[in-house]
Amino acid sequence: MSTAENRELERLAEAVIGRIFVPLEASGRHVHVTKEQALALFGHGLTPKRPLSQPGQYLAEERVSIVGPKGRLEHVAVLGPERREAQVEISVTDGRILGIAPPVRLSGDVSGSPGIKLEGPEGSIAIPAGVIAARRHIHMTPEDAARMGIADGQTVKLQTFTERPVIFGDVSVRVSPRFATFAHLDYDEANACGMQPGDLGRILS
Amino acid sequence: MSTAENRELERLAEAVIGRIFVPLEASGRHVHVTKEQALALFGHGLTPKRPLSQPGQYLAEERVSIVGPKGRLEHVAVLGPERREAQVEISVTDGRILGIAPPVRLSGDVSGSPGIKLEGPEGSIAIPAGVIAARRHIHMTPEDAARMGIADGQTVKLQTFTERPVIFGDVSVRVSPRFATFAHLDYDEANACGMQPGDLGRILS
Repeated sequence: MSTAENRELERLAEAVIGRIFVPLEASGRHVHVTKEQALALFGHGLTPKRPLSQPGQYLAEERVSIVGPKGRLEHVAVLGPERREAQVEISVTDGRILGIAPPVRLSGDVSGSPGIKLEGPEGSIAIPAGVIAARRHIHMTPEDAARMGIADGQTVKLQTFTERPVIFGDVSVRVSPRFATFAHLDYDEANACGMQPGDLGRILS
Repeated sequence: MSTAENRELERLAEAVIGRIFVPLEASGRHVHVTKEQALALFGHGLTPKRPLSQPGQYLAEERVSIVGPKGRLEHVAVLGPERREAQVEISVTDGRILGIAPPVRLSGDVSGSPGIKLEGPEGSIAIPAGVIAARRHIHMTPEDAARMGIADGQTVKLQTFTERPVIFGDVSVRVSPRFATFAHLDYDEANACGMQPGDLGRILS
């Protein structure tokens, strides 16, 4: 096959895969902070280190420690850009280390969730609420949602094609032109299904 | 209702639940050792502390440290009685802390698995192999297996009625008169499905 034919075949294969499968990504523990909090923790705003799969989102150069009543998590990733409200996304396993029980919530739904202390190189802050275990979710472009017949806010089952196959129930789909299509699991979930980078899932109706 | 009627109702309810559901249990990281290894680690054989759900099995008073190339796990449970071969059952998350990648295996299937160092109060031992992430499995009595139409060694799907509902694929069922009926998940799996003590699962055909 010629290089051009090869490229056309690859493009086709990707299009077919994109109609059926959703790439899986594991989200490690991470922190979102406001501009004011970044200033208090680091003495300046966040510095982009590398882009994430979601357009405009990035991993920052800066790191924090999360300090709970029972234990600490060091060198935790901070994601940018800054937000209007702090949010700390940890796994249930992380919660055991810290000594708190994070409620399972969608990003942004932090009312009544526990607070925590964050330590940066330039200072510490106490956030009054915002510690959650991210509810598993799928980010989806409007094009992929239309192809798959999925509406924004819909709850679906997600089958993983992984070493330890799982069907995750109660997976929330959020559709936006600002998104790239990816299913986000936390590390408890990624380890429970034996997920490796590049693994795919499929939405079950 | 009289106390006798109440008791009869409870007995009936339990019988019905036992025909449909399988109780879920989370297995924390733990270690099995031989008699010789117990002697080397503790200076004596294992001391039963409390019985486990599987008849004859117990949590020992003794504890060990697991020492990997990158990190340590302290105060790890030792289960008795002693076995003919050492086995160290950890989660994938634990493996990251230790710096090893445990293969997902059924108990007893340890060929080619990594070794590790164990430290006890009286000495240390290096086991050449035996570190695994336990493949999720169901212990089942022959009576329950007959009722549910399940054969020893069969692989099933297990639906969990938990906060974060999941259908676990690739669940191995082992049937023996020496067993009590329980589904065993590791902590990655238990956290991924939001399992709480007393939660139930159901085998899907």
